Amino acid sequence: MTQYNVAVVGAGAVGEEILRVLAEHHFPAKSIKVLARSARTLTVDGIDYQVEPTTAEAFDGVDIALFAGTEGEKGAAVTFGPDAAARGCVVIDNGADFRMRSDVPLVVPEVNAAALAEHKGIIANPNCSTAQLVLTLKPIHDAFKIKRVLISTYQAVSGAGGAAVNELQAQTTALGEGRQISSAGPAFPVQIAANVIPQIGGFDDAGYTSEEMKLVHETRKILGDDSIAITPMITARVPVFIGHSESVYIETEKPVTPDEARELWRNFPGLRVVDDIHSDDPSLRYPTPLAAAHKDTTYVGRVRQDLGNKNGLTFWVVSDNLRKGAATNAVQIAEALVERGWVKRGA
Amino acid sequence: MTQYNVAVVGAGAVGEEILRVLAEHHFPAKSIKVLARSARTLTVDGIDYQVEPTTAEAFDGVDIALFAGTEGEKGAAVTFGPDAAARGCVVIDNGADFRMRSDVPLVVPEVNAAALAEHKGIIANPNCSTAQLVLTLKPIHDAFKIKRVLISTYQAVSGAGGAAVNELQAQTTALGEGRQISSAGPAFPVQIAANVIPQIGGFDDAGYTSEEMKLVHETRKILGDDSIAITPMITARVPVFIGHSESVYIETEKPVTPDEARELWRNFPGLRVVDDIHSDDPSLRYPTPLAAAHKDTTYVGRVRQDLGNKNGLTFWVVSDNLRKGAATNAVQIAEALVERGWVKRGA
Repeated sequence: MTQYNVAVVGAGAVGEEILRVLAEHHFPAKSIKVLARSARTLTVDGIDYQVEPTTAEAFDGVDIALFAGTEGEKGAAVTFGPDAAARGCVVIDNGADFRMRSDVPLVVPEVNAAALAEHKGIIANPNCSTAQLVLTLKPIHDAFKIKRVLISTYQAVSGAGGAAVNELQAQTTALGEGRQISSAGPAFPVQIAANVIPQIGGFDDAGYTSEEMKLVHETRKILGDDSIAITPMITARVPVFIGHSESVYIETEKPVTPDEARELWRNFPGLRVVDDIHSDDPSLRYPTPLAAAHKDTTYVGRVRQDLGNKNGLTFWVVSDNLRKGAATNAVQIAEALVERGWVKRGA
Repeated sequence: MTQYNVAVVGAGAVGEEILRVLAEHHFPAKSIKVLARSARTLTVDGIDYQVEPTTAEAFDGVDIALFAGTEGEKGAAVTFGPDAAARGCVVIDNGADFRMRSDVPLVVPEVNAAALAEHKGIIANPNCSTAQLVLTLKPIHDAFKIKRVLISTYQAVSGAGGAAVNELQAQTTALGEGRQISSAGPAFPVQIAANVIPQIGGFDDAGYTSEEMKLVHETRKILGDDSIAITPMITARVPVFIGHSESVYIETEKPVTPDEARELWRNFPGLRVVDDIHSDDPSLRYPTPLAAAHKDTTYVGRVRQDLGNKNGLTFWVVSDNLRKGAATNAVQIAEALVERGWVKRGA
């Protein structure tokens, strides 16, 4: 079996999760090196990784580099990605910098693995909120043609990085002890514990956030259909550590029933339908972020036909934003490349 | 000045909030009696109220009775409301039991105070999530005619009563101390801290919850227009103590710009526009439930035109669910009756 020299760039929450998923999936790694700003030892699930500083030379001999990406600023892939690709390494970038470039495939393997064939050394992983959404849209779009999508999100703080997780934890401790929280930040402009913040990313001239516009552009690119009208009603941060939830409404060209949708989803890889609303077991009634945490799967439930409109369907999608929203999807891209022999170099 | 004998029925979170709002608003009360299941002393903001058991006779001589209502079960207004009304008392019920009856006005005073003229002794207060929604819809509907509404909610636990608040607080303390939460309940079927629960109320045959259907039926009744298509995409519980948030999308017959909407809202009572997204002061950028708590006002922000559709508008509405969603609106109904001389009896 061919094995590959792998580099993981980034030693934060997503970097750690990539290392975890590579191990869980038994990825055929000959070696795994971890690159970040500065050298240190990173321990993930009992395994020690020696973190080396990221340099162009560090990619020599690397077959696949998984860049964790960063929130809000240019990722290491901007600085090192093209160099790494020039050295024959396939770059899989979880950051936002390359996603909309026409020469870079943006891939959720269950949806558009074929797009990997055209890669020129750099492949983009979609934004967390897009990945779980397109999984649910794809089979419906193929069968019933989706004309429009409206979405409101409930996003976990881990999508904003480790500082955001620490901020929610510290505020939770304070609230748990009955203490007042006097100041917010640095991760969020206002208190996130016991609150909802209706902003993720910066604002454009029309008042939409970057997170909202990612849902529009990335979804169209992955589904390969710019005709779908997508309305990001809001992308909001909720006081949840792991797991993004999405309230979704779609209109289809052909009428679609909840049963038809559930059947399509049951047969689609990466998805699990949790929609037994009358079950005695609460975990079978509908998905929640807490139940989805640390899972590779994306869960869909609360499926209903629109009231008085057979071409409308509304549902609830939940996934671990660090897994399918980041690490799992990136590793799955690597696996798809390996399966198809589209990694340039193996040992 | 005419003064009134007032009864508040219910000594839970909403009952307490009604007493607080009556005091803050300097309601012309000659007397205030508090009725509940059993006698005890209730202290609200330093004022002691002697709670008496609710009986039909307790309403003798009462001019206005404000029923706090209960979550999920038949309220005291079912048992005692008709009796109280027969004794000449005007009943204002915050419970769900009477809202959709054709002989009971369902009122948000800023929107449809005129409907109070037809009251036959019982007046209904809308559900918390409806009250704040209709405030934002009314001026837009009058000026641009709303054809459809889609909504996803982010609702605070206090809407589910005191046990729910205690449950979130206990779970928050556990999480703050790094402890595992082994079991959920009794208020919620699964852990609510650090989670989102996409269910409020029971399910109907189409899979919608009672909370979702209240948004449909109550909104149409208050706006007096059954032609509006309303899609409750989800009503979800978030780990917030006070303040419901709503992500709303509307389609209007005539195109409406964000500036036109904001101008209408600025001139509408009970509403405040918080939409200065580039402000240095985070509290002016958009509303959050934490900032809306303990306020009578409903806040609206994140106003945007739909992408590529001038007849679509999306925005974010936040209000204190115990205030405008319950106590404040009930007291405002009483105030509207007093102003118009529509209380049957004053002393």
